Amino acid sequence: MLAARLSALPAFPLAQRMSRMKASAVREILKVAERPDVLSFAGGLPAPELFPVEAIAQAHAEVLADDGRAALQYSTTEGYGPLREWITSHLGEGGLHAATDQVLITNGSQQGIELVAKVMLDPGDVVIVENPSYLAALQTFSGFEVDFAVVGSDNDGMRVDDLERLVGGERKPKLIYLVPNFQNPKGTTLSLERRHALVRFAQRHRILILEDNPYGELRFRGEHLPSLASLDTEGVVISLGSFSKVLAPGLRLGWAVGPRELIRHLTVIKQASDLHTASLAQRAAARLLTRFDFNAHLETLRAVYGERCQTMLSALEKHMPAGTRWTVPEGGMFVWVELPRGMSADTLFPLALDKRVAFVPGSPFFASEPRSEFMRLNYSNRPSELIEEGMRRLGAVIASQQQ
Amino acid sequence: MLAARLSALPAFPLAQRMSRMKASAVREILKVAERPDVLSFAGGLPAPELFPVEAIAQAHAEVLADDGRAALQYSTTEGYGPLREWITSHLGEGGLHAATDQVLITNGSQQGIELVAKVMLDPGDVVIVENPSYLAALQTFSGFEVDFAVVGSDNDGMRVDDLERLVGGERKPKLIYLVPNFQNPKGTTLSLERRHALVRFAQRHRILILEDNPYGELRFRGEHLPSLASLDTEGVVISLGSFSKVLAPGLRLGWAVGPRELIRHLTVIKQASDLHTASLAQRAAARLLTRFDFNAHLETLRAVYGERCQTMLSALEKHMPAGTRWTVPEGGMFVWVELPRGMSADTLFPLALDKRVAFVPGSPFFASEPRSEFMRLNYSNRPSELIEEGMRRLGAVIASQQQ
Repeated sequence: MLAARLSALPAFPLAQRMSRMKASAVREILKVAERPDVLSFAGGLPAPELFPVEAIAQAHAEVLADDGRAALQYSTTEGYGPLREWITSHLGEGGLHAATDQVLITNGSQQGIELVAKVMLDPGDVVIVENPSYLAALQTFSGFEVDFAVVGSDNDGMRVDDLERLVGGERKPKLIYLVPNFQNPKGTTLSLERRHALVRFAQRHRILILEDNPYGELRFRGEHLPSLASLDTEGVVISLGSFSKVLAPGLRLGWAVGPRELIRHLTVIKQASDLHTASLAQRAAARLLTRFDFNAHLETLRAVYGERCQTMLSALEKHMPAGTRWTVPEGGMFVWVELPRGMSADTLFPLALDKRVAFVPGSPFFASEPRSEFMRLNYSNRPSELIEEGMRRLGAVIASQQQ
Repeated sequence: MLAARLSALPAFPLAQRMSRMKASAVREILKVAERPDVLSFAGGLPAPELFPVEAIAQAHAEVLADDGRAALQYSTTEGYGPLREWITSHLGEGGLHAATDQVLITNGSQQGIELVAKVMLDPGDVVIVENPSYLAALQTFSGFEVDFAVVGSDNDGMRVDDLERLVGGERKPKLIYLVPNFQNPKGTTLSLERRHALVRFAQRHRILILEDNPYGELRFRGEHLPSLASLDTEGVVISLGSFSKVLAPGLRLGWAVGPRELIRHLTVIKQASDLHTASLAQRAAARLLTRFDFNAHLETLRAVYGERCQTMLSALEKHMPAGTRWTVPEGGMFVWVELPRGMSADTLFPLALDKRVAFVPGSPFFASEPRSEFMRLNYSNRPSELIEEGMRRLGAVIASQQQ
């Protein structure tokens, strides 16, 4: 393993899927954006000051004191029973009624995407995605050598009325992937009417919907909308949830809920992938949730994120030159900004960095026909003062490019 | 999501790989074997009474008190720096010298197998495995629709002298997978001479070796043998390690160490799979390892497992009828028993269960040409008294079948 001698030797032939797995450009951007002197709105991180650190510490201490050996031993792939029960009960409150054996615990919802892809997708299969869409999901699907069929979106989310043209072709799509609530990167939400239409569409064509819902609990404005899974009576929706945005991402806990038979397939695949999700983290979360006031915690998150979002929207109003437009999220963590005509976020990025402010250029979020006039801004990870200051800097950079 | 209506609807077409992913027969066996009245040697569990529960609890408490927000936030895919540094330093003591950026933290070594398979293997590729081999690795590889080329083994491990005949064919094997130390299921260890020969073979043919080494630290007899990775100077070995057998499996912490370029590919694939391994568990393990007496803990594990192994070997000697043979492990967790001529472990299993003793029949461990006269016994998970009693029951069942 002497590094010096290795470079001269021929590389191993890799799997074909690796040719689709470009090193993520955004990853490089995020590294640059993390320079300590830069005010970054590039990442997608929740506010760490709101993590319930003490409650999490206490839950770990109690589980290890009471059930230490079981919490540290191998456990079942399906996940810890009481945690799965809490999830079904919690989903029930939101109108999604499922049995405990319809829930699989995953390492965050990212693993849910991976497992569904692995159960469903062969090379050359077609996956329908919004354009733009969550970048890491596109990356996961690319690893399964699929082709994307893209559908546009507006302020009411995916253009469901535009789906029909995607099913007439030679290859019937296998999967529709979307983030219906407070989408990443756009921050927009699928309207109720479109939810009904999408589920009907999927039922009519027997195409599986993968509903990725990491932000659903973070609504700070407007009315709760039913999940796609809750509108479905024919088993065409798998819904992914996550504790990453509502407890803490560092625990890597999420879940998949869906038709029993598909959950069984996901479980077989997960077993071969990593046996099971960490027993200790699952038990600590279950312990925490039985007596921690989760709803009060959600209220706090919603209040803080709502305030930060409002600060960002007001600051955009104040500092952006004419011709700049943005989405108005009702929850979640992101605002999507459209630059004045003819301006490119990729060109803007190094200039903004010079002024010590950062964002993610929008182009990598497009599965096809990338457009360069967008950028994604995160508001959950910065206090309001810094959001105000950041938008001031960003507005000045954009204005300077308009002359 | 009303279960009652679902069964009448057509199932979704799954990915082709799913046809290779049979629900594991062993899983069903393990469920039956866990009946509380059954003395089971079927599982592959470490001894929970030896988990350093208090030290783990203290490490979690300290990390959450000192660095709670960072420990609960998203973190890098590569893994927590100080944990990777501890691993490189620990591997260095065993003769394997690697840099920190040659180490990727995984969710147990099972995820390491999955990631290597995903980076390397296309459908129809050939993977060389021992016959019999670790069952869950076979399951993982099957999910990548590969073909197995099998090589036999004896008391010195893989028959390395028999490999040459596997490379002349039309399809050059892409990977050689093995557990060199205290193999699962056989308990046997690859001899030093064969280690050298195997590495030379892999270098000569430029075939990657996947060295899976979850039990290497559990040697209670004989001399430490160098890892395959430490014998390699041409970057043909990826080596997987795990904290599951030496700290606790419920943390789901393992690692892959290997050539820098391959580790980079594994990292890209892991990012798309689950972003990263739990930050809290990684930091707690790193904290624990900086001042917990890990070597003393290993000595305890070796002493206890060595005693249990010896108890099992003596009890086999005492209770097994003539014609029964077994391996003599120098470490790890398993003994592999060959039944008297003409007897089948599959037939024996329900009879043993009637006598309230269980094992895993050997046939599922064979990638091809399964043989039914073997069974795997685990000795790490039962105290000596119960091992003695279990072997007495098992010997009586086997003897009763001989008449």
